[in-house]
Amino acid sequence: MGGMMNMIDATREQDADHRFAAAAVESFIGAVLTAVGLPAADAAKVAQLMTEADLTGADAHGVFRLPQYVRRIRAGGVNTRPRIMVEKTAAATALVDGDNGMGHLVVSRAAATAIELARDAGVAWVGVRRSNHAGTAGLYAAMPVAHGMIGLYGAVANANHMAVWGGAELLLGTNPLGIAVPSGDGPVVLDMATTVVSYGTVKQYALAGRDMPEGWLVDSETGGPLTDPKRSAEGLLLPIGGYKGSGLAIMLGLLGGVLNGAAFGRDVIDFNYNQDGATNTGQFMVAIDIARFVPLATFVAETDRHLADLRASKRLRGVDHIRLPGDRRRACRVERLRNGIPLPAALLGQLDKLAGELGVRKLRERAA
Amino acid sequence: MGGMMNMIDATREQDADHRFAAAAVESFIGAVLTAVGLPAADAAKVAQLMTEADLTGADAHGVFRLPQYVRRIRAGGVNTRPRIMVEKTAAATALVDGDNGMGHLVVSRAAATAIELARDAGVAWVGVRRSNHAGTAGLYAAMPVAHGMIGLYGAVANANHMAVWGGAELLLGTNPLGIAVPSGDGPVVLDMATTVVSYGTVKQYALAGRDMPEGWLVDSETGGPLTDPKRSAEGLLLPIGGYKGSGLAIMLGLLGGVLNGAAFGRDVIDFNYNQDGATNTGQFMVAIDIARFVPLATFVAETDRHLADLRASKRLRGVDHIRLPGDRRRACRVERLRNGIPLPAALLGQLDKLAGELGVRKLRERAA
Repeated sequence: MGGMMNMIDATREQDADHRFAAAAVESFIGAVLTAVGLPAADAAKVAQLMTEADLTGADAHGVFRLPQYVRRIRAGGVNTRPRIMVEKTAAATALVDGDNGMGHLVVSRAAATAIELARDAGVAWVGVRRSNHAGTAGLYAAMPVAHGMIGLYGAVANANHMAVWGGAELLLGTNPLGIAVPSGDGPVVLDMATTVVSYGTVKQYALAGRDMPEGWLVDSETGGPLTDPKRSAEGLLLPIGGYKGSGLAIMLGLLGGVLNGAAFGRDVIDFNYNQDGATNTGQFMVAIDIARFVPLATFVAETDRHLADLRASKRLRGVDHIRLPGDRRRACRVERLRNGIPLPAALLGQLDKLAGELGVRKLRERAA
Repeated sequence: MGGMMNMIDATREQDADHRFAAAAVESFIGAVLTAVGLPAADAAKVAQLMTEADLTGADAHGVFRLPQYVRRIRAGGVNTRPRIMVEKTAAATALVDGDNGMGHLVVSRAAATAIELARDAGVAWVGVRRSNHAGTAGLYAAMPVAHGMIGLYGAVANANHMAVWGGAELLLGTNPLGIAVPSGDGPVVLDMATTVVSYGTVKQYALAGRDMPEGWLVDSETGGPLTDPKRSAEGLLLPIGGYKGSGLAIMLGLLGGVLNGAAFGRDVIDFNYNQDGATNTGQFMVAIDIARFVPLATFVAETDRHLADLRASKRLRGVDHIRLPGDRRRACRVERLRNGIPLPAALLGQLDKLAGELGVRKLRERAA
């Protein structure tokens, strides 16, 4: 129990020869995105969110994604100068058209809209169409928390790595869900793919040259376990809870995609291979104003009491301590702010190459 | 793959010597609830919803629950004459105080409120406190669908049968989630516990005298598999996806319980053993007006297209057909409307005894 989490944790730390200050990572990402055409303010915003992903341990959604984002931008797959449109369709609903801009910008706008509408209406549901990959769900789910609100975020993933339960064809994504609530220790954030692991984790294993444990993917031909991450294209990610995770991925796909006129199922293009096509990514953002239900202070105090109960509860044999949603994220942020963000050598090589191509100063030359 | 579903399906069918017309089951439930003090209209409403659970294959939430409901009502644990109060707290939010009435009545009222508010505001989030067990999540999630809306429902379960991931203490419930969207074939309903199986299924195995497969529960002392359903009190239900299902159960508990001033964690009383205490059950109901995002006809057509794609997709070896959320429910409803609702002999014995005690006509005497 907990073994899978530990393995994920260990991947980057073990292979990381180098650590970099968050400010250096953020300035590097910003410089690269500016070099490929984003306005400075937009580049800075995306850089801040990608660095936050790295700080909070969402390693597959931070600077690790930069080479891929740059490939798509340079190929014309992403609009660097989007005109993001927000249409309020009722007191508590809005639809955001991202004009094929960077997903981080589009979803941030959706989150801000949800917070604004929920302030008056009590809750707001904001749909997003024509967006792009926006990184980890927790980033956005946590945004309403500073406003005394609960945040929910869902997305249609940008590649299909899962089959419907019983199926062998890649028609579903890892379609992640984020839920964040306030507590005395800051946001409590659940950030989960509907698959046993995210494809980003598979990519990290491939980069690190490590085998994956059984239970993550099955071979789409034989149905048997697939443990070599380099063969992941021949495999299917497994959903959590069998038909339940498959059903949840379908529902998140309908809520994030179909409801917003965005891609789902067979219409999803694999942004790992297709560089120049618009993804028409769909996402949704919900903000719930806590004070419309119970006083905010009561919610926080009661949440703290219940989380403390869970944390202090009797443990199964062999379990050192109980980890709650958001714990790893919070601890990781403290540790990485202090010691820097660890980056594996293979990734660093890719980033150096990128810096050279774009004529920006290398990350390792920015280290504090 | 799919083996677990087949086992669940098989339980009732194999042990069922008798089938009863839905109308007979509904009239029996209504008569029993009237006999223990519910007003006729309320008894009829609960009977209709419980029978719908039986028709749609949610066997652990239909007439199977009647003896338990009656025990709690007779012990004073449930208010048979509740004054259910709806407080609208903003354009898109409301809080329903169930006054400790039957959960079916309270949540139905919350669903009606959510639909009404969402018609104007585009979306509505309605919290519920001081409610009771309301049966299967799908019943309520499906209610907005007839109004061109998507429904979401979440609840804090009425007993803690799960530990936090890594823990050995029963502090979490199966906290179910329901999501329903319209399609050309009627509502597509996802109805899932955050545990691998619901405790209702464990109870059915106990009633049928059958062993459970490994992977459903672990022994809270040893951490090893527990397969004898009669020993379920010594076990912990396992969450789907390990820490993910555990995290989802916590978040649904905060959204359904803490946000509404309802019970969660250590405050949840086990309604299987406590007969006379108020459960202060928390639930929430969300309605989303589809037309605020895309035209309803577009949503339905696109959902149909995607579900047809999934249904017709290539299958894993050994899989006969692909089952989507709501398929089993829909097929079961057609079959049971035609052939009757199968009831195991042990349950029928309990129902006969109940009829005798309350002086109402037995179910088997009502058969069409």
